[in-house]
Amino acid sequence: MDIRHFTLSELEALSQKIRDRILEVVSSNGGHLSSTLGATEIIVAMHKVFNPHKDPFIFDVSHQSYAHKLLTDRWEEFATLRQFGGISGYTKPSESDADYFVAGHSSTSISLGVGAAKAIALKNEQENRIPVVVIGDGAMSAGMVYEALNELGDRKYPMVIILNDNEMSIAKPIGALSRMLSSAMASPFYQRFKRKTEQFVDNFGEGAHYLAKRFEESFKLITPGIMFEEMGIEYIGPIDGHDLKSLIETFEVAKGMGKPVLVHVQTIKGKGYEIAEGKHEKWHGVSPFDLKSGVASSKSSTKSATQIYADALMDQAAKNEKIVGVTAAMPSGTGLSVLIEKYPERFWDVAIAEQHAVTSMGALAKEGFKPFCTIYSTFLQRGFDQVIHDVCLMDLPVVFALDRAGIVGEDGETHQGAFDISFLRLIPNMTLCAPRDELSFYQIVEYVAGYQHPCSIRYPRGSFIEADLPASIPFETGKGQLLISNDSDKLFIGYGNGVGRAAQTIALMEDKPSLLDLRFVKPLDSEMLQTMAQRHKQWYVFSDSARLGGVGSALLEWLSEAKITDVQVVSFEYDDIFIKHGNTKLVEESLGLLPEQLAKTILGG
Amino acid sequence: MDIRHFTLSELEALSQKIRDRILEVVSSNGGHLSSTLGATEIIVAMHKVFNPHKDPFIFDVSHQSYAHKLLTDRWEEFATLRQFGGISGYTKPSESDADYFVAGHSSTSISLGVGAAKAIALKNEQENRIPVVVIGDGAMSAGMVYEALNELGDRKYPMVIILNDNEMSIAKPIGALSRMLSSAMASPFYQRFKRKTEQFVDNFGEGAHYLAKRFEESFKLITPGIMFEEMGIEYIGPIDGHDLKSLIETFEVAKGMGKPVLVHVQTIKGKGYEIAEGKHEKWHGVSPFDLKSGVASSKSSTKSATQIYADALMDQAAKNEKIVGVTAAMPSGTGLSVLIEKYPERFWDVAIAEQHAVTSMGALAKEGFKPFCTIYSTFLQRGFDQVIHDVCLMDLPVVFALDRAGIVGEDGETHQGAFDISFLRLIPNMTLCAPRDELSFYQIVEYVAGYQHPCSIRYPRGSFIEADLPASIPFETGKGQLLISNDSDKLFIGYGNGVGRAAQTIALMEDKPSLLDLRFVKPLDSEMLQTMAQRHKQWYVFSDSARLGGVGSALLEWLSEAKITDVQVVSFEYDDIFIKHGNTKLVEESLGLLPEQLAKTILGG
Repeated sequence: MDIRHFTLSELEALSQKIRDRILEVVSSNGGHLSSTLGATEIIVAMHKVFNPHKDPFIFDVSHQSYAHKLLTDRWEEFATLRQFGGISGYTKPSESDADYFVAGHSSTSISLGVGAAKAIALKNEQENRIPVVVIGDGAMSAGMVYEALNELGDRKYPMVIILNDNEMSIAKPIGALSRMLSSAMASPFYQRFKRKTEQFVDNFGEGAHYLAKRFEESFKLITPGIMFEEMGIEYIGPIDGHDLKSLIETFEVAKGMGKPVLVHVQTIKGKGYEIAEGKHEKWHGVSPFDLKSGVASSKSSTKSATQIYADALMDQAAKNEKIVGVTAAMPSGTGLSVLIEKYPERFWDVAIAEQHAVTSMGALAKEGFKPFCTIYSTFLQRGFDQVIHDVCLMDLPVVFALDRAGIVGEDGETHQGAFDISFLRLIPNMTLCAPRDELSFYQIVEYVAGYQHPCSIRYPRGSFIEADLPASIPFETGKGQLLISNDSDKLFIGYGNGVGRAAQTIALMEDKPSLLDLRFVKPLDSEMLQTMAQRHKQWYVFSDSARLGGVGSALLEWLSEAKITDVQVVSFEYDDIFIKHGNTKLVEESLGLLPEQLAKTILGG
Repeated sequence: MDIRHFTLSELEALSQKIRDRILEVVSSNGGHLSSTLGATEIIVAMHKVFNPHKDPFIFDVSHQSYAHKLLTDRWEEFATLRQFGGISGYTKPSESDADYFVAGHSSTSISLGVGAAKAIALKNEQENRIPVVVIGDGAMSAGMVYEALNELGDRKYPMVIILNDNEMSIAKPIGALSRMLSSAMASPFYQRFKRKTEQFVDNFGEGAHYLAKRFEESFKLITPGIMFEEMGIEYIGPIDGHDLKSLIETFEVAKGMGKPVLVHVQTIKGKGYEIAEGKHEKWHGVSPFDLKSGVASSKSSTKSATQIYADALMDQAAKNEKIVGVTAAMPSGTGLSVLIEKYPERFWDVAIAEQHAVTSMGALAKEGFKPFCTIYSTFLQRGFDQVIHDVCLMDLPVVFALDRAGIVGEDGETHQGAFDISFLRLIPNMTLCAPRDELSFYQIVEYVAGYQHPCSIRYPRGSFIEADLPASIPFETGKGQLLISNDSDKLFIGYGNGVGRAAQTIALMEDKPSLLDLRFVKPLDSEMLQTMAQRHKQWYVFSDSARLGGVGSALLEWLSEAKITDVQVVSFEYDDIFIKHGNTKLVEESLGLLPEQLAKTILGG
């Protein structure tokens, strides 16, 4: 929709229409609500001033970009938001050329802006194109933002960075920047102060001009702009992010400046939906809800893996004061919030800063503490080097608790927890194990709390796959648990949530295979596997993880090393693709991973 | 050595002795020279004021820590610096309890300091212990420093951060911070200005106190301190880093402040060795050299892989103006400096900022350019998430050129390029290939320059292993090259530098196996491997990479998928350990990877 010739009142009406559409769809499908409502006028103003088909529109994380989707030929399709085969909850170039880049992980936008700006300069398109970046205050804590600002301030590429400051990333904001941003409210006072001082300077004879310049700098000092200007980025703001007129005027100014400009925009999360307005975490990402009451439409009755983790860790933390923990801006998503509340001196949220989270826990482990580094599987990718260099190299007993391992559902390809086994297994000194249900999760948390080396546990988003199986026995390093022993040629090997999937598959088969809960993919249970290799020649691997370098791969390496040649391994891990978004069951079905499909595959193969 | 009761002149004499010892050993063994000479007084002053056995001494990268090693019971042993089995070129807790942490990768120190400070607070040891961090200006560009400062400034743990500013990381410093640091020289002028203005304020009646406070802030504005103070970190400096007296006095003050303090210290790289003083890259890391003349003792006559890469890329860049490139603070280490010099608008050094380097190249690829992201294998670990999320997810044609893949020799365990195949292979859309010699390197650079997907090439530090083999043919996606075809049961499969190793091993064997240059570990050459599996039942894998998830693993996955059960695979990749430092040949010998050892193993097995 080209809205560049819309009048202000037409734009205001449009904003209302957009909000209504967002509320209509999100209340029915679930999705990111409050940030996207809060960014509506910003996006409308961007579309008024810039051209989304020419200027790279770069939305950080891009969960705030729904209005942009609605303005670029996806009004009807938006009904399929986050559904399997439908519109993604994030920007996606394959949906529209107005979506410049995929996003989902935080804090990549300014780097993308710098890259785009370099390309624009090389193509001599600076007259007609300028990157426009939208980034929230929460995303500003990650280091890569600073790396990008550093180069941008140095090379001074024209770029408009819209800092969408709603004073609350997902969780409570942390750190120096958010402190500075909130000081912005004091600004009108300093404007008055400035005028007063200027009069005073006029009375001062010699050197007045010079001093006045210095004075002006002293005013900047007490606005949030100083940090950016010191980095070589122009700063404008703060402005009201729901006032379309001033947004449009400011963006016009910024567009014409020919250098990097940060526009500091203050918005209210959830703006326009009273129940959500100004609320912190609760309305960030929501399940379907009743629009009138704000009450969630349905609630899962089963305890989530996250909840079990939090409970189990709470038990351990009460018993052992050496236990500490960290999360990177996901306190409630990881369940750590209750621990931070109860033990604020031992559990920390360090904001979106996975690298720092990992390395600082390395030092705590060195000092004799037992850190639980609690991060989503997909986000630990950001701390990969630190896991190697600052934890495993010194063989320090940090626990990496990886939430949302496996398919995460509606968030989709940027958030799938597919790779952690493959990228952690290759690291020397690392132990990898996984629980399969509530009891085993309690046991594993107790086990790793006493473990003296780096280790990682993984567990799914939502609840474990249910299965009627023998009770889990306490964990012992490198030991599996044989759950079903039959006289079949087939052995099912499950890891983590894969155990339940294997059990559900067995339930559909007449010829019952044996079932081994592998428990440790590193180190492997050699003794058990030797026995299994004698009894069963067809191994089937069930694990919610990528196949390349994954659990099946570990077993193949082991078989090769053990010179066992008569065992065939079939792995039901994920193919070598980025897995799309949608309801987890539908996504799994598309991959052939539902128990009924697996049973068929096995019998057919 | 406890030097806390030394007099100033004793400390000065000691500093001279330390410099002499460093020069003596480094000129004979090679090592990091200029930064370590420059930091001598800083370290002596640290040992005077703090206690290395109690206070965590955290050296960033730690290549500047030689004086610290000499002061902590390693004076004699220091003769074995960087030699196999000898003293490491970096801090290493297994050498001394005065070495708090392993380092090698840049910019981890402040995170470690925060972790240590948290531990000290939990243990109630704040009266007796304080973390002391030494970090160079070059290391300040990496994002994780900012993540750590953000939490530190918020929580205000007591900590002394010594910013060792020699105005030149390894390469020319880049970005906003270094610009600010250099503005520090203007400081005396502003001190005078401040006095003058204060007199003036005295004449001003009402509100004078308030204004004076604001004035003081305006002075800070024009010193490098402002950025740190805005982040909640106290700033002292700049002070002369070769003036022991003022270093000691300042450290005493900082120690007593009970909050985070950054002491800005200006030093001269190479201080005390006239030939190296103030020199940029050349004297950063050196081979053995003649102390009197400064001339390197010997020079390798073979062209290094780095040099071949630079030459090949230069050829391509001349032909194709869409080729761009980036390095992260390693312009001469990666050979990119000549390209930056020739094409400053297309090749960039973005400072130590691997995350930003990767993501910004993603945007350039999206814009139709062909980026060569040229990074050491070990440092790409820092950009892992960005390779997945900002390049591979969108299937963008970025080339990752990984220098120093394999064993790197004297730098040791933090720098080994062991893991790249394992951590890149698991990423969907990624292609992995490798050259084996000069000709194939030219061919592969030409090939990847035209390739339309993400791909990675890897090559060793120094030169390729020489071998008398058929000439390389041009690269074709997923195609290997059969170099030797014999009627043996044995097939040697080489990848990259492993091809030369395999060939040298064959030269020592009577029964000559066949030799396949795999060329692509992803995608694999299915057709070729099918044929090979019919002809040869014993496969031996030669690749300078970790075994877990590596080349052998890829072949095992392929065999399993192809349901081929009668082929045995033995991989001569690296064991699942962190590989120690030392002369590459000695290290390889310790791992049993020399051709004569491999030949024996194969015949014995």
